Order: sequence, then C-alpha cells, then structure tokens
Amino acid sequence: MPQTKFWLPESDIPTHWYNVVADMPNAPAPVLGPDGQPIGPDALSAIFPNAVIEQEVSRERWIPIPEPVREIYQMWRPTCLVRAHRLEAALGTPAHIYYKYEGASPAGSHKLNSAIAQAYYNKQEGVTRMTTETGAGQWGSSLALAGQMFGIDVRIYMVKVSYQQKPFRRSMMQTWGATVLASPSMETASGRDALAKDPNNPGSLGLAIAEAVEEAASRADTNYGLGSVLNHVLLHQTVIGLEAKKQFEMAGEYPDMIFAPCGGGSNFGGVAFPFLADKAAGSDVRLVAVEPASCPSLTRGHYAYDFGDTVGLTPLMKQYTLGHDFMPPSIHAGGLRYHGASTLVSQLYHEKLIEAVAVPQLATFEAGVTFARAEGIIPAPESCHGIRACIDEALRCKQSGEAKVLFFNLSGHGHFDMASYDKYFSGELEDYAYPEEAIVAALARLPKVPA
Amino acid sequence: MPQTKFWLPESDIPTHWYNVVADMPNAPAPVLGPDGQPIGPDALSAIFPNAVIEQEVSRERWIPIPEPVREIYQMWRPTCLVRAHRLEAALGTPAHIYYKYEGASPAGSHKLNSAIAQAYYNKQEGVTRMTTETGAGQWGSSLALAGQMFGIDVRIYMVKVSYQQKPFRRSMMQTWGATVLASPSMETASGRDALAKDPNNPGSLGLAIAEAVEEAASRADTNYGLGSVLNHVLLHQTVIGLEAKKQFEMAGEYPDMIFAPCGGGSNFGGVAFPFLADKAAGSDVRLVAVEPASCPSLTRGHYAYDFGDTVGLTPLMKQYTLGHDFMPPSIHAGGLRYHGASTLVSQLYHEKLIEAVAVPQLATFEAGVTFARAEGIIPAPESCHGIRACIDEALRCKQSGEAKVLFFNLSGHGHFDMASYDKYFSGELEDYAYPEEAIVAALARLPKVPA
Repeated sequence: MPQTKFWLPESDIPTHWYNVVADMPNAPAPVLGPDGQPIGPDALSAIFPNAVIEQEVSRERWIPIPEPVREIYQMWRPTCLVRAHRLEAALGTPAHIYYKYEGASPAGSHKLNSAIAQAYYNKQEGVTRMTTETGAGQWGSSLALAGQMFGIDVRIYMVKVSYQQKPFRRSMMQTWGATVLASPSMETASGRDALAKDPNNPGSLGLAIAEAVEEAASRADTNYGLGSVLNHVLLHQTVIGLEAKKQFEMAGEYPDMIFAPCGGGSNFGGVAFPFLADKAAGSDVRLVAVEPASCPSLTRGHYAYDFGDTVGLTPLMKQYTLGHDFMPPSIHAGGLRYHGASTLVSQLYHEKLIEAVAVPQLATFEAGVTFARAEGIIPAPESCHGIRACIDEALRCKQSGEAKVLFFNLSGHGHFDMASYDKYFSGELEDYAYPEEAIVAALARLPKVPA
Repeated sequence: MPQTKFWLPESDIPTHWYNVVADMPNAPAPVLGPDGQPIGPDALSAIFPNAVIEQEVSRERWIPIPEPVREIYQMWRPTCLVRAHRLEAALGTPAHIYYKYEGASPAGSHKLNSAIAQAYYNKQEGVTRMTTETGAGQWGSSLALAGQMFGIDVRIYMVKVSYQQKPFRRSMMQTWGATVLASPSMETASGRDALAKDPNNPGSLGLAIAEAVEEAASRADTNYGLGSVLNHVLLHQTVIGLEAKKQFEMAGEYPDMIFAPCGGGSNFGGVAFPFLADKAAGSDVRLVAVEPASCPSLTRGHYAYDFGDTVGLTPLMKQYTLGHDFMPPSIHAGGLRYHGASTLVSQLYHEKLIEAVAVPQLATFEAGVTFARAEGIIPAPESCHGIRACIDEALRCKQSGEAKVLFFNLSGHGHFDMASYDKYFSGELEDYAYPEEAIVAALARLPKVPA
C-alpha cells in the first residue's frame, strides 16, 4: 500500500501568511481613484477594518496569522495532500499527480480560509455585522460560518435567480445563522431602484455587490467582506501553498507544474504564490492559472486599468480584463465568471512569472467525471478547470514518457453543484468561446484613465 | 491550541474486522426458513457471494480485510477522531465530547465501508453486475462508487418518489457510473405488476428491495448488496470502532458512553461492537443505540421472529420489531425508517449489553443545528439522532458536574439533506410518536413461527 495521503499535524498550520508582493520584481500597480490619482487606504475604511486595509497595501513578506484564526483553521486544516495513484493508473501516465483537498472545509471550499480571517479582524475592530454578496454560494457559505464563529451577524445578498435555483446553498447559510436576502431586495436604495424599474429583476452579481456595499457603507456597525480579487484575500489563501510545500517534503517530491482555477484569483494565488517564492530562489516550477474559455480574461483580455465591478463604482485596478461590462455566458462554474483577474495575478502574468490557459466547459466536466471515478471525490465545477489542465499535461507526459510531478488545488467539492453534472450528462451543456468582436467591443469601453 | 483532530497514519487502517459474535454470551438466534427450521448458507447463494455468506455465519473473532479493500479504504480512511471543544463550550458542559467523522468518505457516509468490501468479494467470485435499492441515497451512492472501483456494473432501484425528489443523489450515483432506475420499474416482474395495478405507484423501499433481489436472483452474473441489518454488513463497519480505540489512546482518554443512530444497525454496530469487546474485559463503557421516536423498534417493539422486509419474502430473523408491515411515518432521517433492528443488535439489547433511547425528530434537528454552529460540519439527519442523545448527556453532566467522556459517530454529512433542514427552519416538521394501539396492532400481525 503506497502512501496516498500526506497529513500535517495541527501544529503545522502556518503561523504566517505569505505576501507575494515582497518578492515581486516590481511593486504592484497602484489602485487609482476617479481622478487618476492613487487612492489612500482611508478610501476603504468605510467598509473594511484597518487590519485588512493594512494587509491590502503591505509589502511585508510574512504577515502573522492571529492565534484565534489558527484555532478555527484547526476545524479542517491542515488539509490533506493526496497522491492520485488511481487517476494516474486510469490515465496510464508516468506523471505523479498530487492534489490538495480544500473541499474538506465545512463550507466546502478554500473560501473559508479568508472568511475566517476577515470575520476575525472585523470582530477585533468592534464590527458586529457584515454584508456580502454571493452567486454560486461558496463565498456566502464561508462568510456565514465565519460570522457564526465570531458572533458577527452576516447578511448575504444572494443573486435572486441563484436564491431560487440553489435553495440548498441558502439553507446551508441559514444553518450557520446568516440572513440570506434575495437581491434585488427592498433593503437598499440600489435594490429598491432596480425593483421599481422591474419588479421581476432576476438580479446579478454586480447588483448584489452594490447592495452589500451600500449597506456596509451606510452603517457604522457594519463592514463588507469580499471573497476574491483583492490582495488581502489572496494573502489569506496562501495557507494552501504553504502547507503543500511541507507536504511535498513529506512525499519527497517537488512539483514541476501547479494548476489552479482562476476567476478572481484567490484559488490560484493561494496555492501558487508560496511556490513563486521558490522560483526567485532558482526553482523552475511552472504555475498555471486555468480559466474558462467562455471568460478568458488572462488569455484574451487586455492588461489595463478597469473597474472591479460591472457598473463602475470601484476604484480603478490594473488588471487583465475583458472590459468591466463584459457579460460572460451563464457557464456553471459560477465562481469563475469574472471579467478580470486580480491585480497581483495580472501583474505576475504580465511579467511572465506565471502562465495561463483557457479550457472549454465540456472538457472540464469530462475531467471532473474522470477524476470522480478514479479518486472518489466529486469536484466543484470551478475545480474541474484545474483538473482538466492537469490531466492534459499528464496525457502529454504519457506521450513523452516524462514522470513529471503535477499538482492541482482541488478547491471544492461539487455536492451543491450536481445540477450542473446533471446537465452535463443529459447533453444540455455547450461549449462557448466568446467571439473576438464581442471582446474587442467590450475592451473599447474600458474607462479612460485621467493622466 | 489544544489538539482537536486525532489522525492515524494509513498503515493503521485495520487489517481485520471485528466479529462481535465471538464475544457474545450466547450464539446468535438462527435465521429460520418458512418451515421454522434454521436455513443453511446455500439459501443465500443466489444473491450473495460465498465469502460474504461465510462472514454472515462466522464465529471467528477476527476476519482479515483483503489488501485491495484496505487500499481503497485509503481513499478516506482512517477517518478523523475530533474533540468537539467548541460544542463543549457552547453547551457549557464539563464533559469531553468526541466524534468520529465518517462523512469524510467520498460517498458522504459510513456506508462505503461495507460497499467496498461487498463489491470486492463479488468481483472475486466473477460477478459483474450488482443490484441494490436505495431510499435516502446514502447506500446507493456508496455501492455506486464501490462498483466503479472494481469494474462492477451497479444497478440501483431508487424509490420513485426519492428519484424525483432527490435528483442530486441520483446524479451523484450516475457520476460514479451506476445505472439508477426509478422503482417500480418495467425491468422486473415485481415492478411491472405494481405498475399494472397503479401506473402512478410512488414506490416504496420494500418494493425496491423486491425488484433488486428479483433481478439478482434471476441472473447468474448478478448479485445483490444490502446496506445494513445483516451480520456481514455490521462486521465491515467495525473499522470505525477499531480506529476509534487507537485514536482514544492517542487522546489519552477512554469513552464513558458511546452514541450512534440505529436503524438497521450498521452505524451503531460499526462504532460500538469493538468497544463491547472491552466490556467483556471489564470496561464499563455504556453503548447507546439512538432511534427515532417515530420508529422505536428497540424501545417499544417486541423481541420476536419477523421478516426482514415489509412483504414477507425474507427468512425469519429474531429481532426487536414493530411488525414487518409497520409503516413508519415519513420522517426525514430516511435511513432510520426500518421496522426492526439487526439480529445482533437486538440480541445484545435483549441481553442488556447495550442500551437504547428514542429521540423525537425536532430535537434531533435542533441538536444538528447546535452542532453545525459550533463545529462547522452540517450533519445528516440520521447522524443528528446520535448528536441529540450525546448533547442530552452532556447537559446532564453540566448539572452533575461530571467530566464524562462522550463519543458519537458522525456517520454522514447533510449536504444532500438540506431540504430537511429547510423544512425544520420553516416549521414544517413535526414530532410524531406512534400510538400504542398501532404498535399493538402491528405486533399482532407478527408471523407465526412453526414449532
């Protein structure tokens, strides 16, 4: 029985998060206000606690993880590193395939890593309520549980169509004590406006963000939590890669290539950034961000200043973007439907320190089913993107005879996404590649940055 | 950070199952045929492999676990023993509460422990197809994955109303390559008969069993797999208790009381039987089977010979029973809706080596929510029964000041049962205690055993 699972003791839960900014060849491009000037940290203080804002702009390499956060990480961390012997055999590849199983968190994905940290810092600064938005539900579930851990009331604006179609994600959030509101709601001016125009408005992630931010900005006791894109969120996710490095030592191997899905960037950044530090020290590990072909910001977007939201309320961030009003088709990996990529991921991609690949939807589900039939776990549709790219490489190794060490982040399970698998099996899913002219048109609408 | 999770290395996956029959004060009551005479092993050979039939009647204390079964157990075993520090704090109890998390299996419950073993033995004996039935879906999911592991085609008769109302359990089984048939189906004479009488027959577990057994009995290449009740199923589940004993050594504690839900008995037997061996050696650990108040076979049934199924096709087994045609109300812990208890559990209860308690439905969901808000994991409704009884004891300890060590088996997660939580939150669930006269009437219909 060759060893399959590599467990670290709880004492090896990282004591610090790794801040990739410290090792970037160039400082991150500044975030700009509407006047084209870099914005200061206090522009964010209406909706974020100071500790989080400090992390957002920090250049320190190591940021201590507070003990109460580590104690809650103990619920499910360290997560397991698994050698996928059965998948290797099913593919007939000489490659060694490893995955880290972040779906073991009670909320079902890596998102909980940042949710716990955000809830902690808010609690420390006297915040008693937090708002957020959720679409697919992974982030909303995570913040619901995190709020429960620290006695914070969590109010989640859930896109109305998801609220209706994914009742079980909603009941999960309610089980952990959160209030879930169908967005557009009557709770905010943004919601009321939208409903006045169209009482049947099905909602959108952009509108749900607007509602959550509006409520947080308008109340002193309330802050806002975001599940990806921003630097501090990616920072919190680095526990994944940090644990994996120790686990690869246990396994006596080191990855040649690392794959992770990339939407906003927290999944990819979490697993890849700690290995990027090794690249600076001479490692030639290849870090591959995997995005959906239907929303290909890194592989087909422009590197430019753009808004973080669809309606243009946020400051401008330099990013690979398809244009902030780019409307990705309704693919089922809801967590990857974002028009841009985080500033950090974008800049590292621009500087060729990381790679990116886009994969079509049907192929990702095929990979997910292959994985489930070999390794048991049914992956979330987002996670299937990383699996697809890893399997493709494993099959190339089969051709070349190379025994490469391949590693992907299994960011979540698919227990709340079986409707998507159903559609895949019944042939209702299609591939979709955005027409070039639509991308050109969306990019033509990029905001002008004042000089 | 006090230690929370107790992991065993993969090399500590048990090498043998523990057969409680070897330590029972009296041999198990024999299984009787329609003539009242004990039936021989070959009566079972039309639907079970020989290795399983041997286990069914074995009196050996230790039965070796085949290496290929242990290798697949590596997917998720050993499962973690967890000290529930947060639950203790939430209850304000001096008790030490531990749980073993069997929901970590890819199929989501302990059922996979026996499914893997059954699929292996069938494969060894040249069987290429297996049939089974499923209601709630935990067992069907487990056999689907187990069949995939050994290249066995699995055909699952799923009660039609569940097939329609739990589409995600169905897609889970399909993801693992199983064929799922709504029962009653046109595949079997039993199904066709039922549909001829009523084309809208919603199905029942009894009918689904009849279909699965009929198909298995009529084809040489096909056997049947059962998820609970029989001795060999309880045997396979003893990996839970065996691992737990080693993990309690790691924790430096020993349980005073062990709680597990009890329907057919595989969950309770799996965790409790290995500790029963210690009782013989002087331990005074108390083993508590927890059943729903709406289906109280141990606490309100009779100890008598009865059929295992609702229509009277199986041999007669001595058991605590509410009468084989007892129709439990539609409570949501579908896995506990069984009119009887396994022969082994029944006899041990009759001989006062184990205890039993019945808990009402609303109190189980209340306990599940308390647990989820403290420990994160959302438990399956079946598992909530064990949690309820454990919490009740922890609250008694709070009154008495005793620091008892309490242990329950968290047999599964509730990711596919959120509709039940929804109903609980919305006030649609009710408690139901069976009227005494209904039980008396059902017991009056117990089969007469020829002398």
